[in-house]
Amino acid sequence: MKKRLMVLIALLATASYAWAGDTAPTPLTNRDAITLVQEHANFLWTLVAACLVFFMQAGFALVEAGFTRAKNVINIMMKNLMDFSMGSLAYWAVGFGLMFGVSKSGFVGTTGFFLSDYTPGGDPWILAFWMFQVVFAATAATIVSGAMAERTKFSGYLMYSVIISALIYPIFGSWAWGSLLNGSGWLEKLGFIDFAGSTVVHSVGGWAALAGALVLGPRLGKYTKDGKVTPILGHNIGLAALGVFILWLGWFGFNPGSTTTADKSIAMIFVNTNLAAATGCVAAMIVSWIKFGKPEVGMTLNGALAGLVGITAGCANVSPTSSIIIGLVAGTVVVYSVLFFDKIRIDDPVGAISVHGVCGAWGTLAAGIFDMGGFSASVVAVQLIGIAACFVWTFGTAWTLFVLIDRTMGLRVSPEEELEGLDICEHGGNAYPNFEVHHYGKGSGDASPSGAGVPMRAALKKEAPAQP
Amino acid sequence: MKKRLMVLIALLATASYAWAGDTAPTPLTNRDAITLVQEHANFLWTLVAACLVFFMQAGFALVEAGFTRAKNVINIMMKNLMDFSMGSLAYWAVGFGLMFGVSKSGFVGTTGFFLSDYTPGGDPWILAFWMFQVVFAATAATIVSGAMAERTKFSGYLMYSVIISALIYPIFGSWAWGSLLNGSGWLEKLGFIDFAGSTVVHSVGGWAALAGALVLGPRLGKYTKDGKVTPILGHNIGLAALGVFILWLGWFGFNPGSTTTADKSIAMIFVNTNLAAATGCVAAMIVSWIKFGKPEVGMTLNGALAGLVGITAGCANVSPTSSIIIGLVAGTVVVYSVLFFDKIRIDDPVGAISVHGVCGAWGTLAAGIFDMGGFSASVVAVQLIGIAACFVWTFGTAWTLFVLIDRTMGLRVSPEEELEGLDICEHGGNAYPNFEVHHYGKGSGDASPSGAGVPMRAALKKEAPAQP
Amino acid sequence: MKKRLMVLIALLATASYAWAGDTAPTPLTNRDAITLVQEHANFLWTLVAACLVFFMQAGFALVEAGFTRAKNVINIMMKNLMDFSMGSLAYWAVGFGLMFGVSKSGFVGTTGFFLSDYTPGGDPWILAFWMFQVVFAATAATIVSGAMAERTKFSGYLMYSVIISALIYPIFGSWAWGSLLNGSGWLEKLGFIDFAGSTVVHSVGGWAALAGALVLGPRLGKYTKDGKVTPILGHNIGLAALGVFILWLGWFGFNPGSTTTADKSIAMIFVNTNLAAATGCVAAMIVSWIKFGKPEVGMTLNGALAGLVGITAGCANVSPTSSIIIGLVAGTVVVYSVLFFDKIRIDDPVGAISVHGVCGAWGTLAAGIFDMGGFSASVVAVQLIGIAACFVWTFGTAWTLFVLIDRTMGLRVSPEEELEGLDICEHGGNAYPNFEVHHYGKGSGDASPSGAGVPMRAALKKEAPAQP
Repeated sequence: MKKRLMVLIALLATASYAWAGDTAPTPLTNRDAITLVQEHANFLWTLVAACLVFFMQAGFALVEAGFTRAKNVINIMMKNLMDFSMGSLAYWAVGFGLMFGVSKSGFVGTTGFFLSDYTPGGDPWILAFWMFQVVFAATAATIVSGAMAERTKFSGYLMYSVIISALIYPIFGSWAWGSLLNGSGWLEKLGFIDFAGSTVVHSVGGWAALAGALVLGPRLGKYTKDGKVTPILGHNIGLAALGVFILWLGWFGFNPGSTTTADKSIAMIFVNTNLAAATGCVAAMIVSWIKFGKPEVGMTLNGALAGLVGITAGCANVSPTSSIIIGLVAGTVVVYSVLFFDKIRIDDPVGAISVHGVCGAWGTLAAGIFDMGGFSASVVAVQLIGIAACFVWTFGTAWTLFVLIDRTMGLRVSPEEELEGLDICEHGGNAYPNFEVHHYGKGSGDASPSGAGVPMRAALKKEAPAQP
Repeated sequence: MKKRLMVLIALLATASYAWAGDTAPTPLTNRDAITLVQEHANFLWTLVAACLVFFMQAGFALVEAGFTRAKNVINIMMKNLMDFSMGSLAYWAVGFGLMFGVSKSGFVGTTGFFLSDYTPGGDPWILAFWMFQVVFAATAATIVSGAMAERTKFSGYLMYSVIISALIYPIFGSWAWGSLLNGSGWLEKLGFIDFAGSTVVHSVGGWAALAGALVLGPRLGKYTKDGKVTPILGHNIGLAALGVFILWLGWFGFNPGSTTTADKSIAMIFVNTNLAAATGCVAAMIVSWIKFGKPEVGMTLNGALAGLVGITAGCANVSPTSSIIIGLVAGTVVVYSVLFFDKIRIDDPVGAISVHGVCGAWGTLAAGIFDMGGFSASVVAVQLIGIAACFVWTFGTAWTLFVLIDRTMGLRVSPEEELEGLDICEHGGNAYPNFEVHHYGKGSGDASPSGAGVPMRAALKKEAPAQP
Repeated sequence: MKKRLMVLIALLATASYAWAGDTAPTPLTNRDAITLVQEHANFLWTLVAACLVFFMQAGFALVEAGFTRAKNVINIMMKNLMDFSMGSLAYWAVGFGLMFGVSKSGFVGTTGFFLSDYTPGGDPWILAFWMFQVVFAATAATIVSGAMAERTKFSGYLMYSVIISALIYPIFGSWAWGSLLNGSGWLEKLGFIDFAGSTVVHSVGGWAALAGALVLGPRLGKYTKDGKVTPILGHNIGLAALGVFILWLGWFGFNPGSTTTADKSIAMIFVNTNLAAATGCVAAMIVSWIKFGKPEVGMTLNGALAGLVGITAGCANVSPTSSIIIGLVAGTVVVYSVLFFDKIRIDDPVGAISVHGVCGAWGTLAAGIFDMGGFSASVVAVQLIGIAACFVWTFGTAWTLFVLIDRTMGLRVSPEEELEGLDICEHGGNAYPNFEVHHYGKGSGDASPSGAGVPMRAALKKEAPAQP
């Protein structure tokens, strides 16, 4: 009880002092003490929310692994581990300063690198805020991994991953969110609404994913010369579904946690987040049922994610009823978007471009359209400016980066390595050594609607895909 | 720091105002401010607990998928996604109003549909409370899924799932919990004790599961003409165990979160929940060891869940020592109950009827027997009334509903579809396309003690079940 | 709203009363009320952190199952369930009293068995504290499971597991942490720093694991007569990686939760924990890349855990920059340590001895070296005393215990059972009955670098290991 008593005595004594763990002991008025307790609640909520967002890393890893083939699982896990690990270090050294440091121009922060804004004895809020922001930075990075799965060189991927966490994401972030700490961004000055990051996090991830998928080209065997799309089946749908449940859970940190304040406003954000996700999931299921004749699991899972991405920008300024509309549109759009990208032969194994890029743009627009403050054309115009700025900046820088990597260290593995699998070739391992695993070759019946919801008619003809 | 400063200034100023996110700025006395900070803690706890309960959806999905066959994984994931997604919308539109709306009769609420009790600027508590309640409603719905696994038509299942979340669960819930918001229930007026839902949630799920299993009939090959029970092996015990760990975790939101208040009372509820689960798990292991000669994993996993269901009603009004007794009985009863339902040829692939129905009834009775306020026959009598009312209402309505669905849109897939698997027939997919999966037919040695703890002697004879 | 109103009225009334759920209603001054709200936040944080630490049980189970063979999954899940379930009961009955009961000698507590320090109406803090401590006790126990995987008799394992939770862990714990409640330990009196348990939890687990692995001997086929090490491949790397993500998440409860107070100090602990984990993960990847020619997944996963174990002792008294150094060393050391134990033919399937024992010792030393209060040789000397005391006590008692079990009830299964797998022999089950699983025999090519990061050159030669 001793430790606890220290805390109690602090408040109960006539001349009371700050709690253990706070700065130098100074007498506290009742008003100061109340503020301090609220501050403690704010720290608690922000850091618990950071835990939930951190867990999304596991969700993304499972979705990506589940929607791709057994021969690439180790590579996917390594990429997702490194997204977060190298991303944490890059964001600590460089990214956080660029995003939230003092910014005179409104285009980039220039202080606070290596967490230098914090000195022992100083305000620990900067540490809590960093913790919450680093898990966001890692989310933007990990989104890209899915679109580039099954054919990207590990070393090239690491290079890209560090640069998105250190530069591409934080610089855009400083435009929209810089003033949350010490910065100041030109987009937020215009009144841009993106409460939790439909654009700042998800579209940045989605458009970088688009650039990556374009520079890489499709997986071997996905698009045949006669114009057909050969679906590549995801190897473990149970894991993918678990991943979506984990992501849904994590979003309850992502959106409500973006208050960074433990107040009553988090309740509506929770409800909006949940209703949009539920509606997106149901909508995608129904649309896939109508289009393909059966309710398809890959589309349905992506529908839930689409609803979540869609509500992220407006979760704090639209009503629950509007959330349902936002989710409905997102869950519908994601199905058509996935089919569209397959039609134009951009191979995105998990549907990341559609879920995060396209639905991120939709959510940002919707945050303007459904603003509870009333519809205003100028608000919507600013939203469109933000959406466009994100696309131009992210796609431009990411495309340039991927081309540079491709021409120097190499971005894509050899066709032999791709056929054999990245696990053995890049990591010398085998994710399932006790099981009989099919390693399908180019042009085989190795096809799956669940990868990203591409049409499943081919797959319907046989229970299990043919072996080569 | 700007955002944070707004919060601080509010309290520190001589004439202080409510926090950002609350209603119109009015001066706050110290007393008001203290109350507000406590309120913030209550919102925080209730919503964090809702996150934990939400995650139980993943736990239920994994337990069900792990305890059944590889050919039905996609279907199970789709059912669990839809339980929550369609259930969220049904509970938003109808269920919440029936359960917590104003109820003159004590039998059903009649206000608050479509969250209409909440208006922007109004008390956001209703939103926090809805969020906590919707995850409970989804739990009741998803319990049924397990008992009906591997043979239910997806469309029929969706119809049922919406109706339990919209009508069956909320109407019973209004009897026992209505007064938590605006309602008033006849059962709670009698003094019925069910703190977190042994009856309201788990028995409702369990008795609806019983109705579903009865109307559907057993899976092909489970019960042979010569009176033998052929166990059907669960296909992935690792996933099932992960599901149980997730459920155990989620229960720390389910039970202590039911305070919806961040106070000291949650500590005892945590301890009781954990001790009952641990004891249930150990008890079921020992009983299975004695009965079958080996400690059986399906029974042991269900023993933990049995302990958790058992302590749910009384977690706030019994002592830690009583919790151990409650868990001990629950973990023992669940083994015999699973064997009993197999004996009377009611096929419940995951043991949901025993875990949630039977142990829910036990827990509700135990909450009366072990009440820390002292034993009272009249309290126990009221508990028995509640248990009986739950069975009559739930079994009656659910059985009627399943029969209606069966006779109109159809509740069960064709034998051919059942043999081929619901994944390919209902969803056009394959959960494990890179693996060699056995699709056992009717009457094969396709047997598993782990499905729901049925006797394992047959399985013991061979390492892997024979192929047809 | 009724329930909520009770809470509000309590504070708002002129003569206010304690909240519902607290003890007898007494008038509260504003100061008392503020303290009470802070207390509620402390309960909330401690119990939410306990949830996160509880979830680590799932993480350990998945890492162990993923790094071992498909034929032992049920056994591993049963062991992990029982670690926690039997451990909870043992810690309730005996362990908690030994660890935190009144201790005149400084060597062991002698009060508080069966939670007898708590009486209804008494201070519920003891229950919250017990809940937080029981999940720590279970962590120490479950660490051992990994090192003893795939060859330990279930009954022998249960005996050991109860005794570490009841005696070995709590007695050492009382030396370092007893004063957190009613006790008093000789080590803490010397000034020993181990904030969250690098030594108290992880080294205790690691050195007991070393004793277990020594007494058991290596798995059949791991070390051949010609001096070669035959790696035994982990059967499901996706699950192992999910386990590491879950453990990383859980550590955000483990380290910051050890404040048991909701104050601002948790922010730095979060940041330190994350930076050390990230650096450990990156370091192990790079070292494995240099040593083996490819970035190896088993080593990388263990590198993250090594960083987490390393920062556990010093998370509250070292700077973020020091955390990076601590993680860097831990992630490097763990690779060499794993190779070392293989060289001296101590078979540890998951690398538990290296991750928890060795890196726990490193972290405890580092907490002295990098103390923000400044370097002091005497502080470091005390850290070394604590490290040595832990090794002597734990290795001594655990080794004695394992030898006693071995000579009485038996600690190791027969070679036939080991070859056939513990699932079928010990539990009569099969974790993957729908899949074609290889059950490799002695001396086969049944080898895996991912098990614990042993050299992978043999595995590199073939995509899938040869069948016998």
